[in-house]
Amino acid sequence: MVAGDGSGALSWKTISKKEAYRAKVFTVFEQTSMGPNGKKGTFSVLEASDWAVVVPVVEKPEGDQFLMVRQYRHGADCVSLEFPGGVIEKGESPEAAAARELAEETGWTSSEIYALGSVCPNPAVQSNHFHIFIAMNPHASSQQALDENEIIDAIMLPAEEIRQRMGKGELCHALMVTALFFADRFLSERVRLKG
Amino acid sequence: MVAGDGSGALSWKTISKKEAYRAKVFTVFEQTSMGPNGKKGTFSVLEASDWAVVVPVVEKPEGDQFLMVRQYRHGADCVSLEFPGGVIEKGESPEAAAARELAEETGWTSSEIYALGSVCPNPAVQSNHFHIFIAMNPHASSQQALDENEIIDAIMLPAEEIRQRMGKGELCHALMVTALFFADRFLSERVRLKG
Repeated sequence: MVAGDGSGALSWKTISKKEAYRAKVFTVFEQTSMGPNGKKGTFSVLEASDWAVVVPVVEKPEGDQFLMVRQYRHGADCVSLEFPGGVIEKGESPEAAAARELAEETGWTSSEIYALGSVCPNPAVQSNHFHIFIAMNPHASSQQALDENEIIDAIMLPAEEIRQRMGKGELCHALMVTALFFADRFLSERVRLKG
Repeated sequence: MVAGDGSGALSWKTISKKEAYRAKVFTVFEQTSMGPNGKKGTFSVLEASDWAVVVPVVEKPEGDQFLMVRQYRHGADCVSLEFPGGVIEKGESPEAAAARELAEETGWTSSEIYALGSVCPNPAVQSNHFHIFIAMNPHASSQQALDENEIIDAIMLPAEEIRQRMGKGELCHALMVTALFFADRFLSERVRLKG
């Protein structure tokens, strides 16, 4: 260990927790917790539904393509180019949500959707999880079916171009960088096993 | 375009915005905005300070090592293994915050800190930015200087091990996956230029 005494690996205990604010898409709790050293502190925790994202990959002779969605994002006041995804509904499995969001936002579906893993969007403050999927070779099967406040374009782009641009300009969404990391780990392994 | 009419690239206009809840580390606003189609909707937006993270890389003959920190995270109620980082203070530059957090959380400093880019942690709901840095070959220079409620261990781990484990178990923090993506892009380019 470079610094510390091992206490960083120990959990805190929640002593009290109360709802402080309820928005449409999340609820804020204020909680008091006690550390392994006996000290108490108060912390804000955001509870929200889990989210699912799906990286749709179309394999072509000239190279893989990603099916992506472009939409305005209210939090950062910017247009963002992303993989399809959204909030998992009550009672819905993460995989079903990924397939549903793909179909609703792009009109495309895939019979090969694989779970790549789950992470925490921001474990310091948020309790929810972000589930990452890959959809191999989706195809057009219906029209978009967007929610009330969604205005979304779906476009196909070369995977190699997205890898280069990821994390810059309209590809500014950190969770999409995370999704690409997982997708590329899966795709490299697939190439290795095939090769 | 696979679906949509190009309106996904158009911004919405904020019509009204009011503070709804103020926590220690963020403020919630409820705002009404009008889309390019003239429709109105209400949205919750979280405003918070920007964050900085730094990936500290120690180059060794047997392979790169990452200097990482382990700590309990209240939002997800879990112990998380991360790169050093935290909130940028008022008037502080992102780079100064990265260097400060590295020193405070690990006691190590580096004379070679490079900016790798900035992303939005979650542009759908949050307005803030996450700034990513890399610190080459840091060295021990002082003791940890932790905040009131911080209990942190600093440890050195092989970079290759972290790449394998990233996104799983205690390496569940999505923003750290994002940071690793940026660091690896920098490190590959560095190897290519040197080679």
